[in-house]
Amino acid sequence: MTPAKPTFAPKNPDFETRVRDSFNRQPFMHHCNITMPVVEPGYVEMRVDHDHALTQQHGFLHGGMVGTVADCTAGYAAFSLMRAEDSVITVEYKINMLAPAHGRTMLGRSRVIRAGGSLMICQSDLYVLNGAGDAATEKHCATALVTLMVLKDTPDAPPE
Amino acid sequence: MTPAKPTFAPKNPDFETRVRDSFNRQPFMHHCNITMPVVEPGYVEMRVDHDHALTQQHGFLHGGMVGTVADCTAGYAAFSLMRAEDSVITVEYKINMLAPAHGRTMLGRSRVIRAGGSLMICQSDLYVLNGAGDAATEKHCATALVTLMVLKDTPDAPPE
Amino acid sequence: MTPAKPTFAPKNPDFETRVRDSFNRQPFMHHCNITMPVVEPGYVEMRVDHDHALTQQHGFLHGGMVGTVADCTAGYAAFSLMRAEDSVITVEYKINMLAPAHGRTMLGRSRVIRAGGSLMICQSDLYVLNGAGDAATEKHCATALVTLMVLKDTPDAPPE
Amino acid sequence: MTPAKPTFAPKNPDFETRVRDSFNRQPFMHHCNITMPVVEPGYVEMRVDHDHALTQQHGFLHGGMVGTVADCTAGYAAFSLMRAEDSVITVEYKINMLAPAHGRTMLGRSRVIRAGGSLMICQSDLYVLNGAGDAATEKHCATALVTLMVLKDTPDAPPE
Repeated sequence: MTPAKPTFAPKNPDFETRVRDSFNRQPFMHHCNITMPVVEPGYVEMRVDHDHALTQQHGFLHGGMVGTVADCTAGYAAFSLMRAEDSVITVEYKINMLAPAHGRTMLGRSRVIRAGGSLMICQSDLYVLNGAGDAATEKHCATALVTLMVLKDTPDAPPE
Repeated sequence: MTPAKPTFAPKNPDFETRVRDSFNRQPFMHHCNITMPVVEPGYVEMRVDHDHALTQQHGFLHGGMVGTVADCTAGYAAFSLMRAEDSVITVEYKINMLAPAHGRTMLGRSRVIRAGGSLMICQSDLYVLNGAGDAATEKHCATALVTLMVLKDTPDAPPE
Repeated sequence: MTPAKPTFAPKNPDFETRVRDSFNRQPFMHHCNITMPVVEPGYVEMRVDHDHALTQQHGFLHGGMVGTVADCTAGYAAFSLMRAEDSVITVEYKINMLAPAHGRTMLGRSRVIRAGGSLMICQSDLYVLNGAGDAATEKHCATALVTLMVLKDTPDAPPE
Repeated sequence: MTPAKPTFAPKNPDFETRVRDSFNRQPFMHHCNITMPVVEPGYVEMRVDHDHALTQQHGFLHGGMVGTVADCTAGYAAFSLMRAEDSVITVEYKINMLAPAHGRTMLGRSRVIRAGGSLMICQSDLYVLNGAGDAATEKHCATALVTLMVLKDTPDAPPE
């Protein structure tokens, strides 16, 4: 019933370098210790380890972090399919919280589900990871639909 | 055309103390230097001043901060109308980005638009402020609809 | 607190004729007896009178009709601001149901809240009307945020 | 990467009869010739064949029909998991249009992705079908996230 995972041919062979360079220039990613272990064409993963500074009043990872990872994984999944001359902006997203982000690590996975010339649509899923080895568990804690726009002939970096 | 601003009678006369106490127990609010200048029944304002640590690759306030403030102002606007025995959780939200959060300060305003016994719906609007005095400007940078659930007879604090 | 109602200058002086012509060519509007009493630059109203054929299992106007009016009023509010050469397509929308659509008439009002060159964002509000004259009441039954795309140099009519 | 398809144990062994009875009492489903070929625990399919009366100005199935099927398949997927004493109401949904609904038939599939005691979250996917036999194609035309509320001890039928 689930459509086969689409395979995308990147327009920019250096897409991973470009995505990682952009990610590294985002101070907020460092401020929150978000990492990006996987960058594939049209697919990105990010992780955030539990950290007291990132929690809300019940001691769980803050919803703002859940939304941030949903949005950013989608942004870079879309960006990975763009030309080297283009950049990306989030138009809107909607996120459903499915369970508290209560765990050792939160993992975000986002996949492009429609790659248009002007707009890209991604689905982001967030999971909380607990335990390790054979006892590792993965709980689905949020899901999001994200709409992104291609900014044609627009550099990703700010003007000097 | 705009319906008159609704006036809500809080069920808990100490609503402001309860909202502020909850806000203060959120480490992520401190991590991002978010403040909450206004707490009224069914209405909350938050502010974040520009800070390099909170920016994205173009030097604007990160979209994650925009989403965080949209969600949190809504959460506390809803919480302000709840009984002293209840607490609040975000079910979902949807946010449209209208302009880059490029300014001295971002201001978030959220208002309850439906206060049900189980669910509350809020609208959050985000503005970027620039200039000062007579030259002050306010630009609408995002708008969000947020659905929150009343957790009946559930304390807001974590178990000791 | 509510930003002043924006005033838009239409790019096409014949915007109302163009909007009404497009509306009239939609068979589904006729199938559901939807009318469009107001077309202004960046603002549209539609109405649907209660009709058994349009109801759900509790006898209220079907949620599908609520979503349809939220989407279509937004589409024409956006279309009213476009050039005569362009047409409009819905990218996505999100709707919160606030009360059952239980009444004599449902009224939809949509306003453009951001008119960009490529994308337009509208907010649609739906009301159920009951009573008449001094006893008339208007209940807010749903609210939606709608993202629309400008299809440049694309006719609104199907190819012959 | 896709979590395994969840298997739900229905609380009401007569869930299918109850879902079909409710569907049949919705005049709007008949008005639009929507059918419901599949009802499983936590999963529902609906179909609408192309019909001029249901189209928009370009001759495609109207977006209002796409939204209606996204919402209704979700409502009945959720309803299939409820107790015989409960009924269902849509809280909100968000839908992304991925391609015009241009085809012989539109098929909607919705699956419960979180079955809580008070709220259920569903994902609905819409496809346009063309061709037949070996030449049959299925195009993903929309995807939606839908939040539904359990109305406890509330009959699905209107009061007599």
